[in-house]
Amino acid sequence: MAVLKLCFAGFGNVGRAFCGLLADKRAEPLGICGREILVTGVATRSKGTMIDAAGLDLAELLLMIDRFGRFDPAHVSYRGCGVTGMIEKCGADVFIELTTLSIKDAEPATGYIESAFRHGMHVITANKGPEARYFSRLSKKAAEAGKQYLFESAVMDGAPVFNMARECLHGDRVWKIRGILNGTSNFVLDQLEKNISLEDAILGAQKMGIAEADPSMDIDGWDGAAKICALANVIMGANVTPDMARVDSIRGVTALDIRDAGEKGLRIKFVCQAEERDGAMDISVTPQRLPAGDILARVNGSSAAVTMHARLAGEITIMQHDPGILQTAYGVYSDLITLLKRLG
Amino acid sequence: MAVLKLCFAGFGNVGRAFCGLLADKRAEPLGICGREILVTGVATRSKGTMIDAAGLDLAELLLMIDRFGRFDPAHVSYRGCGVTGMIEKCGADVFIELTTLSIKDAEPATGYIESAFRHGMHVITANKGPEARYFSRLSKKAAEAGKQYLFESAVMDGAPVFNMARECLHGDRVWKIRGILNGTSNFVLDQLEKNISLEDAILGAQKMGIAEADPSMDIDGWDGAAKICALANVIMGANVTPDMARVDSIRGVTALDIRDAGEKGLRIKFVCQAEERDGAMDISVTPQRLPAGDILARVNGSSAAVTMHARLAGEITIMQHDPGILQTAYGVYSDLITLLKRLG
Repeated sequence: MAVLKLCFAGFGNVGRAFCGLLADKRAEPLGICGREILVTGVATRSKGTMIDAAGLDLAELLLMIDRFGRFDPAHVSYRGCGVTGMIEKCGADVFIELTTLSIKDAEPATGYIESAFRHGMHVITANKGPEARYFSRLSKKAAEAGKQYLFESAVMDGAPVFNMARECLHGDRVWKIRGILNGTSNFVLDQLEKNISLEDAILGAQKMGIAEADPSMDIDGWDGAAKICALANVIMGANVTPDMARVDSIRGVTALDIRDAGEKGLRIKFVCQAEERDGAMDISVTPQRLPAGDILARVNGSSAAVTMHARLAGEITIMQHDPGILQTAYGVYSDLITLLKRLG
Repeated sequence: MAVLKLCFAGFGNVGRAFCGLLADKRAEPLGICGREILVTGVATRSKGTMIDAAGLDLAELLLMIDRFGRFDPAHVSYRGCGVTGMIEKCGADVFIELTTLSIKDAEPATGYIESAFRHGMHVITANKGPEARYFSRLSKKAAEAGKQYLFESAVMDGAPVFNMARECLHGDRVWKIRGILNGTSNFVLDQLEKNISLEDAILGAQKMGIAEADPSMDIDGWDGAAKICALANVIMGANVTPDMARVDSIRGVTALDIRDAGEKGLRIKFVCQAEERDGAMDISVTPQRLPAGDILARVNGSSAAVTMHARLAGEITIMQHDPGILQTAYGVYSDLITLLKRLG
């Protein structure tokens, strides 16, 4: 039976949940393409690197992380190299990129992805940075290498927002995208409406595990800017980067603003928007006062939604309710199935 | 250049808007498959039938309807036959079924579709009846004939609800579907909230052109039942028909019910639901009191939405805002592009 070999950069919650799906559902990709799925490499920043061209034991990998928080340096498959070394040595067909992202420069994800293309691998990434900043360059490199470049989980986790626009709105043209794309800041705005201070709201989000230790990427809009740029580049054929976006923080939203909006039946939401105007692309991430009839005003907590305005299909919204790690892992898994289908 | 020949049953607003798209966008399907699109037959109930195996002039067809409300009996391509006769004689590759549906028996659509498969045609239908009642039989016949059977516009017009579930949620399993699927009854409920009587609300919907002369299919839930059965059959692999659904009319919703719900922060919505329970499929179309946090409570006017509960992707809602004829026509057009892609 033909074999498809995967390797991973990063093995945090998403990577482990994805491996759980793979172990759980191994029969399914097999049914689609008659291929056996093997994992031949896993490289991490702090847990070590494992390589075995004949296939690592997934259950054993998961068990080591579970028990010791890292791979066992005494294991026969343990290696001293990092991601780049693993890409060179593990002989995989598919590179699954799940590293922690710097939104500022989209690294190290972008460099790893380019290295994977050079080594003849398909790429699946959960990172929005590469699509937000270098989509046209990376998709060109993928095409030159004759490889797939997939990233469904980069925006809205498992909700098929890229696939829907690309596979289902064929023959149509999206001219505007609006979304609530950052769960942390949306949760914080919900809390402000409950008379909780910004500081306490952020602390609450951190306790719930939905905000980083440094919440500024979320609260100040840069995570949203990366996501709306990724959507605009992929779906609208734009060629934008987060630096081109008008980005306002929600730090400036006061209790008075919230009360005043509430009295008028409005809600303040952190709206990411991309719109084609006179041939130019206008990108913004700003707190906006939305009327109750606007469906984006109804997105609560860590849910997310995106409305696409298309020339023929009209105005279509896709919403994901309270996503968790399983949904992000499904986004990666769904990319693997897309890849298997395309390989035929 | 290879040619793809289309024929039509029904040539009302949707058919004509679709032909407008075809004329407008002829270049696009060509770009996809290198085929020329011809229309070789159009059969209608009251406007006459036109057949020309070498291709009818679309602009001329549209002009005749526009000027005279029917095809010209003196035209060289005019024929006395109906849909079945056209299927036999027009030599088309694709049958586009846009007739007026009887929800009770899914005819004449189902008979026409079977006839088209027998004559070696692919089928695109805008009718929900065949999928609601005979999906498993029709998809089996399509497979036996080696033909495509597509129906994206049957539920929620141009919103890609079937395509999303089938193309984008691959590897996942939907176990529950809830939706606001009938625009007329949703509009009527909006009006009841504004203290307008049921009778006046229905009259208003008729004046706006969103309700039939006999509104009972909408108001009494049978249109919704057909749509939720179509969704359950196609997406959940159910084998149900509208007769199996628990269906309550919104005629029983009183002004007092509406006021009482409003005072509690609830909205009464006409919810179509399909849920797998202990291996059996439970289908219902009932007025329900929804809390403000339920996204289906926020679907206004003639908009529609469906929430799919999937094992891995979680809870995903797709919403179409204020659809019109162009959106239904796009649903049909999008099926044509799907067909062209599959033909390769």
